[in-house]
Amino acid sequence: MEQRVSLITLGVVDVARARRFYEALGWHGQEVEETVFFQAGPMAVVLWGRAKLADDARVDDVAGDGFGGVALAQNVRSPAEVDTVLAAAVAAGATVTRPAAPTFYGGYAGYFRDPDGHVWEVAHNPGFGLADDGSVILPEG
Amino acid sequence: MEQRVSLITLGVVDVARARRFYEALGWHGQEVEETVFFQAGPMAVVLWGRAKLADDARVDDVAGDGFGGVALAQNVRSPAEVDTVLAAAVAAGATVTRPAAPTFYGGYAGYFRDPDGHVWEVAHNPGFGLADDGSVILPEG
Repeated sequence: MEQRVSLITLGVVDVARARRFYEALGWHGQEVEETVFFQAGPMAVVLWGRAKLADDARVDDVAGDGFGGVALAQNVRSPAEVDTVLAAAVAAGATVTRPAAPTFYGGYAGYFRDPDGHVWEVAHNPGFGLADDGSVILPEG
Repeated sequence: MEQRVSLITLGVVDVARARRFYEALGWHGQEVEETVFFQAGPMAVVLWGRAKLADDARVDDVAGDGFGGVALAQNVRSPAEVDTVLAAAVAAGATVTRPAAPTFYGGYAGYFRDPDGHVWEVAHNPGFGLADDGSVILPEG
């Protein structure tokens, strides 16, 4: 697994409210299907409905489960690399919450939780720019 | 507030175990005072004791409080910029959990939670490399 983070997704109750907050701080985001992306250097900070994020990751968003409404993601270069990273994570002690499978957007992704329960998505998204060095590049917005 | 993230800190039960997990995935970290730093592009992923992180942020790490053991941080260029960013966050609807104050490492920092409870630290750390573009630069390790 490369030593980089592609996305930090913050699960939020109200995407519009959350966007207003970050834009009031001077950030500028792009919204795609009720998801807001902020370019932050070579990665993106993402606002997404918290329930959707929990469902996507197949985690229970209940008190005591340890889910804090945050997921990190690493976007990789191929479906095969998704499988490789998930297998390595399991070998290292992670728990897969959502086995890798095709996604609605034409990609391929799965989720694991690290030994402390932190949630990671590993995704191949052919529609999402990924530079040679692994930087995420959002379209001009 | 600049549109960038300096640190993603993952609160963990056992720093050594967590470090082994990420190093088993091929990452290479540097440990300083029971804190492990992984350079990840222009930012760092940090492993730190979860209870220490909660205490530092002055959040209650109890089920239902919404704290998921994760904090984002933005390192800024001066103590005055810490004050400016915290004031802007409050004006935008954030709650300050720890007012800005000098830190044990000779810096100056405070914490806020965004409207969804996500935890941010805003810090000036004179001992921590910050490039002109805001990239965090860990010492060679």
